[in-house]
Amino acid sequence: MSRCHVSKTDAAHFIQQCMEAAGSNTAHAKALAEVLVEGDYRGHFSHGLNRLDMYVKDIQSGICSAQGEPLVEKETAATALVDGRNLLGPVVGNFCMDLAIQKAREAGIGWVVAKGSNHYGIAGFYSMQALKHGMIGMSFTNTSPLVVPTRAKECTLGTNPLSVAAPAANGDSFVLDMATSSVALGKVELYARNNEKVPYGWGCDHQGKVTENPEEVLDGGGLLSLGGSELTGGYKGYGLSMMVEIFCGILAGAAYSKNVRTWRVTDRVANLGQCFVAINPNCFAPGFETRVSDLLQIHRNLEPISGNDAVLVAGDPEKQHMDQCDAKGGIPYHINVVKHMNSVAQKLNVAALPMDV
Amino acid sequence: MSRCHVSKTDAAHFIQQCMEAAGSNTAHAKALAEVLVEGDYRGHFSHGLNRLDMYVKDIQSGICSAQGEPLVEKETAATALVDGRNLLGPVVGNFCMDLAIQKAREAGIGWVVAKGSNHYGIAGFYSMQALKHGMIGMSFTNTSPLVVPTRAKECTLGTNPLSVAAPAANGDSFVLDMATSSVALGKVELYARNNEKVPYGWGCDHQGKVTENPEEVLDGGGLLSLGGSELTGGYKGYGLSMMVEIFCGILAGAAYSKNVRTWRVTDRVANLGQCFVAINPNCFAPGFETRVSDLLQIHRNLEPISGNDAVLVAGDPEKQHMDQCDAKGGIPYHINVVKHMNSVAQKLNVAALPMDV
Repeated sequence: MSRCHVSKTDAAHFIQQCMEAAGSNTAHAKALAEVLVEGDYRGHFSHGLNRLDMYVKDIQSGICSAQGEPLVEKETAATALVDGRNLLGPVVGNFCMDLAIQKAREAGIGWVVAKGSNHYGIAGFYSMQALKHGMIGMSFTNTSPLVVPTRAKECTLGTNPLSVAAPAANGDSFVLDMATSSVALGKVELYARNNEKVPYGWGCDHQGKVTENPEEVLDGGGLLSLGGSELTGGYKGYGLSMMVEIFCGILAGAAYSKNVRTWRVTDRVANLGQCFVAINPNCFAPGFETRVSDLLQIHRNLEPISGNDAVLVAGDPEKQHMDQCDAKGGIPYHINVVKHMNSVAQKLNVAALPMDV
Repeated sequence: MSRCHVSKTDAAHFIQQCMEAAGSNTAHAKALAEVLVEGDYRGHFSHGLNRLDMYVKDIQSGICSAQGEPLVEKETAATALVDGRNLLGPVVGNFCMDLAIQKAREAGIGWVVAKGSNHYGIAGFYSMQALKHGMIGMSFTNTSPLVVPTRAKECTLGTNPLSVAAPAANGDSFVLDMATSSVALGKVELYARNNEKVPYGWGCDHQGKVTENPEEVLDGGGLLSLGGSELTGGYKGYGLSMMVEIFCGILAGAAYSKNVRTWRVTDRVANLGQCFVAINPNCFAPGFETRVSDLLQIHRNLEPISGNDAVLVAGDPEKQHMDQCDAKGGIPYHINVVKHMNSVAQKLNVAALPMDV
């Protein structure tokens, strides 16, 4: 595969320039750039630069608001309902997570729910903000319907991700950042392009039947919830996805379930629901970070099945990816992604990303 | 299978009598009886009467405390750390859930963590207590190590269940109550007794290799996390199990991970960690219960793959089981369970359960 390495600074600057050219104000453009670059840096390329054109289009068409600030509609010492006012997801997410952390400092926990939001990038970006304050962070979002519930044939739920981050000693951490579906749609698309079978349990066809043919998943079928078929526990993943929906669309009074707009169809306002939580470990037993470190070490030190594949904890694969980026001096983007984004930039009169291939 | 039907009242009375005879005070014995009967009534027979002898033994041996009350060690408007003082799990659980609900009434949310607890029966018993107050309830517990992490060979995590309950209109509800493993150990034992293969993804052998042979799972192997193998997303279930551990053992300063005592070995105090949460939907967008109802109906009304298996939502299988119990005038216990418990009762000089076979 042809890759070129782009520094985090260059990538962020490029995204910010494009968003500003599309009509975003500087602060909002910067917030989006930061989240997308972090997604790529952590190795979640499906939630980074390659989605820039979607955000540009949303701002240019006016489907997403380019100016303004989120608004607290209702609050208590430990909770808040925020109207995202149809701003970019990261603008809403940062606002809500800040508020949750502030509340957790006083009340021990902050549980903040947003309506009127948009795609916010990787869920982990927000949960991880709590780490800097020595707190546990959580973030949840509903998303466009791509997942078929257990026993059904129709997509009614999104990949509805959840993220939980917990600080360990010496800057180490646990960072779970996962879709509640078996896999992301992008992975199925990749298998389809390579003409490969997908593992049993990833998706189903238009009749709701589990299939190993990626084309059937993409053509009127859908993803399965974590756990796969009913026999292997797919109903649990389906329940978790519904839990995320309850914390997001339902609690916030935003769009929910099959009423969330279709993926990649930006004909109307998204009105996503999102949920942000901070928990202050100081309100519980002393020595939290030391125990988290011990829990992580217990697992990292386990003898692996195969010598080459060490036992990891949530967040470790991302740390490995970041180390690779640092060693190579940049994020290894696929050349086609850079080419495509440069064509987007050209239309906006923004200077192209350098390609070092 | 030979079943006999026992009314909820008779079953609860029987359990209470046995626990009192073993040395529990009346209130504690009653609390345990209520949880175990609710487990059976909801169809979770692995968490009901059939565990009575374990609780009796714990009280008789003094491994679990028979007298006293849980103690709040630390609190804020929205949080508390509770010392369960080694009392029966349901005594600790009820205390903590009451406190969480009380806090949620004032602060919008209550997040209560307990150390020094014991097995508390079904997680859903506690989350559902929030429903009566129109609130979302959650409950988590760590448990004895039975689950092998992704890429490892050794059990370091329990089946670490989580439960989330949310009220809908007219007494309807969403009740997710699930282990974060693919299945419960009891299911694997059942397959072993019947000489049947287990589905791929339920468990692994002592080398960490996924196996369909239930004997290999039980003999030095272990359960897999929700998602099964790494390829089908088992690392996500592993992450969820770790999340539960962080909310429970780690936050509470209780036993955690492989330091939790071995399943069925009651040679030392359990010191389980548990977590109880109540969230007041009135602090967020109005109309919560109506939206939950709509979400449930969207799913229940989906066209099923097969005509016989309607699409359900979390909590519906339990509702069906309770309806069956009501129609038959009691909980359908396996005759061997009743026989065994009657032999336990005989040693305690407690009158046997009637058997209507």
